[in-house]
Amino acid sequence: MQLSLSLEELSALVAPEKRLDGTDAAAITAVTGVAALDEAAAGDLSFLGNLKYTPQVAETAASVVLLPPDYAGLPKPAQIFLFVKDPSSALARVCARVEEKLWPRPAPGIHPTAVIDPTAKLGTNLHIGPYCVIEAGASIGDNSILEAYCYVGREAVVGADNWFRPRATLAEYCVTGQRVKLFFGAVVGGEGFGFETVNGSHRKIPQIGNVVLEDDVELGANATIDRARFASTRVGSGTKIDNLVQVGHNCRIGRHCILVSQSGIAGSTTLEDYVVLAGQAGLAGHLRIGRGAQVGAQCGVMSDIPAGARVLGSPAMPAKEALRVMAIQQRLPEINKRLAAAEAKLAALEKSDTAQ
Amino acid sequence: MQLSLSLEELSALVAPEKRLDGTDAAAITAVTGVAALDEAAAGDLSFLGNLKYTPQVAETAASVVLLPPDYAGLPKPAQIFLFVKDPSSALARVCARVEEKLWPRPAPGIHPTAVIDPTAKLGTNLHIGPYCVIEAGASIGDNSILEAYCYVGREAVVGADNWFRPRATLAEYCVTGQRVKLFFGAVVGGEGFGFETVNGSHRKIPQIGNVVLEDDVELGANATIDRARFASTRVGSGTKIDNLVQVGHNCRIGRHCILVSQSGIAGSTTLEDYVVLAGQAGLAGHLRIGRGAQVGAQCGVMSDIPAGARVLGSPAMPAKEALRVMAIQQRLPEINKRLAAAEAKLAALEKSDTAQ
Amino acid sequence: MQLSLSLEELSALVAPEKRLDGTDAAAITAVTGVAALDEAAAGDLSFLGNLKYTPQVAETAASVVLLPPDYAGLPKPAQIFLFVKDPSSALARVCARVEEKLWPRPAPGIHPTAVIDPTAKLGTNLHIGPYCVIEAGASIGDNSILEAYCYVGREAVVGADNWFRPRATLAEYCVTGQRVKLFFGAVVGGEGFGFETVNGSHRKIPQIGNVVLEDDVELGANATIDRARFASTRVGSGTKIDNLVQVGHNCRIGRHCILVSQSGIAGSTTLEDYVVLAGQAGLAGHLRIGRGAQVGAQCGVMSDIPAGARVLGSPAMPAKEALRVMAIQQRLPEINKRLAAAEAKLAALEKSDTAQ
Repeated sequence: MQLSLSLEELSALVAPEKRLDGTDAAAITAVTGVAALDEAAAGDLSFLGNLKYTPQVAETAASVVLLPPDYAGLPKPAQIFLFVKDPSSALARVCARVEEKLWPRPAPGIHPTAVIDPTAKLGTNLHIGPYCVIEAGASIGDNSILEAYCYVGREAVVGADNWFRPRATLAEYCVTGQRVKLFFGAVVGGEGFGFETVNGSHRKIPQIGNVVLEDDVELGANATIDRARFASTRVGSGTKIDNLVQVGHNCRIGRHCILVSQSGIAGSTTLEDYVVLAGQAGLAGHLRIGRGAQVGAQCGVMSDIPAGARVLGSPAMPAKEALRVMAIQQRLPEINKRLAAAEAKLAALEKSDTAQ
Repeated sequence: MQLSLSLEELSALVAPEKRLDGTDAAAITAVTGVAALDEAAAGDLSFLGNLKYTPQVAETAASVVLLPPDYAGLPKPAQIFLFVKDPSSALARVCARVEEKLWPRPAPGIHPTAVIDPTAKLGTNLHIGPYCVIEAGASIGDNSILEAYCYVGREAVVGADNWFRPRATLAEYCVTGQRVKLFFGAVVGGEGFGFETVNGSHRKIPQIGNVVLEDDVELGANATIDRARFASTRVGSGTKIDNLVQVGHNCRIGRHCILVSQSGIAGSTTLEDYVVLAGQAGLAGHLRIGRGAQVGAQCGVMSDIPAGARVLGSPAMPAKEALRVMAIQQRLPEINKRLAAAEAKLAALEKSDTAQ
Repeated sequence: MQLSLSLEELSALVAPEKRLDGTDAAAITAVTGVAALDEAAAGDLSFLGNLKYTPQVAETAASVVLLPPDYAGLPKPAQIFLFVKDPSSALARVCARVEEKLWPRPAPGIHPTAVIDPTAKLGTNLHIGPYCVIEAGASIGDNSILEAYCYVGREAVVGADNWFRPRATLAEYCVTGQRVKLFFGAVVGGEGFGFETVNGSHRKIPQIGNVVLEDDVELGANATIDRARFASTRVGSGTKIDNLVQVGHNCRIGRHCILVSQSGIAGSTTLEDYVVLAGQAGLAGHLRIGRGAQVGAQCGVMSDIPAGARVLGSPAMPAKEALRVMAIQQRLPEINKRLAAAEAKLAALEKSDTAQ
């Protein structure tokens, strides 16, 4: 990390109520990293965000520590304690500032190696990096950033204030809203996967739709979203999609959903708003997942899920039920033995009953 | 969507037996989109493909609707009904025409930014897009299309009439047949993942084979197929592979198989013809999956599967059996209670039996 | 395959104890491929590595066959038998030699199309391929190879003797040790996936850390590793990661681990040394997986795993237990029937008991 934050800037960000300096702490003029208490080294900023880690404060090698006002210990030599009301949110402010410094918006400008069709419509204040390709009729909204190798297909529409990391793809006719972020290698607008089998061969069903990503959508590295058979595959505003996720053609993802890494959704399934898919969850096609439903990791969803439900397992069950089932499942060998014992006793009783 | 299809062209494609115009329908000269009945807006073409949606016809806002000959209702103002024998297949013809218009074959030509080794052998009538890289000794068959950033490795062979979407990779020595389609970010010919552990370190086992994709294979966005340890990892003609699928080294995929998104196959497994892997299915290595077998979503296959079998679950079981098991599994808490009740009754009976 | 290995070179590599030539074998001057006994054609080298394949030797069409000293048969016409102590390891030596020939290190040199920031620090003896982009402040260690389209972000550090296949990404501030290998489309340093929900919107938690890959790490095609919230996501030396694997932010992967294709690890999980994740395994966040633990294919790990343990299933159980559970699970319909039969017998006994 190349971070360097002066003590003045740090103090301005966290606004400490009190400061305690260990001996020789005057030499500390900046922090050069952020780390957990038990991993911090000299030069680092650390923090006590959860009281269960209180014993680690006395051991930490961090140069500066953010602490709650009632922390009782004293700094070591060459260590500064800053007492703040809420160390976690103070740290978050510091991290946000560091992120702005370390990941600044690239300056506007169009790299001479970008291949931009003369019919493309370019907004103002754009950053277009090396080896971008922008095809005929595409348009790029104001203030958007396309880093190296971004590809914008024919007639595609990039909204304003988008940020595409290197190697993002927005294929032909696809559309993004404002402040959309595509990460490395993400593919928006691959061809929907639909075939009909004619005389033993799979013939592609034409896929003439597109993909629409509404405002503030994020799409992770190497994730893929297919274009619709017709009309649009749609991702609602504020939805965040992690790395290596697959969204099939004609899906309709609601607003403010969270799709964790390696989850996948087959074609034509609808997620209402605020749905969460945990990692590696898989959804069959043509389903409806109700508002706020939570689908557990590796879940296999084969039928609709009502709003607010939590499901687990493959095939998916309501979470409470699934937990009960899983608990008993682990005891199946015991259950099997108990059943055999009961059968033996029954046989003995029947014998004795008959004998009487 | 930028689609515009004149009413004349549409009529020629669907060849209606009868046409009914609502009032003011004369103003309709073209359709500009295709949508389901309940999602269509003015300007759209829609269709009644499944009779269960018949009530939606009266409600649809579509400007033109394809209907079966016996549909009894009347068009609304500014709406045209076209009666055709099979609305679904009529729509398919329309969509195929639209697809040809919206995704035309790029014109032949080699972009000046393509980096092509002088020893590469180029066929006729090629489209080679910006920033393609074609390495030494590679060859590209006639009429093939390589869009932006396609990479063809040393001595690789691209067959005739291939279409590689942007960022497709065909690594060194790999071979494609005719009409192969690679989608965005697909990687053919990564190194097989095989190691031997020597003195506590994993040493790569040399992987000197290649990948062969036969005619009409499609490989989805960001999918990966590894080259063989020796000889070839092979995908049979007509097989369609979806996004984010992994095929390990030395696999032999038969003809006309379907591998749905995020499924994965470990090394040296053989799929005979017409095998289907549903989404997120996983197959262990060194297996044989018989002709026409169907592997369910999220299935975990640890042993061979006979031809024609359908399997479900992880570990995989014959589907019928698996469905029975899953149904009873969900009732495990009840079964556990019933067993406890039976045990209690048994104890009481034994007591009474002993007492007698 | 373009392989050609002269018989002299082959003999030098395998150092046969004895050689037997079939009639007309003098015409054989080289081998042009390597194949299993039952797949070999004229021109191929084959081998008897496992005695269960002994009957195939008499049938093989290979031109040259590596055999154990005690193999009793005779070569066919135009076939040579080479008797060596350990045919498998002799073949491995041949394959290693072939790999060196077919995948030689690219010659040093910087392609004129590479876009290299003037502040980047370049070591000696580098190969930098077409369309590479190296951002400000990045550094590339001696003897490293960056093939086409590789992207090295701002202030990133590539160690010595690295080999990045085409389209590898090492994002800003990330660091690799020596001899690291990144495959096609691999992404190191995507943004960690962490949000807090404020007034119904998901707000990104700043992710100001990086990724560190230690010596001899390999990362497969289209695999993704996210940068840390702060400090580093770290992969220990000698760890091998397969295609399409996801490693979340702040994970700490130990040394000499193996992560098989499509496995995924949520944020802040620690793997100690020598952990193996089989294909499609998924690990929840904030876990600790003990040294040498083995996690089965499709396993769902929700809690810590002790050193040396083998686990299976979702949720994961100790392997022995899981196998017992799975075996009984398949018999659930039978168990259910047996329970019903026992209940019926009990009812009959109770009736008879009451009657007495």
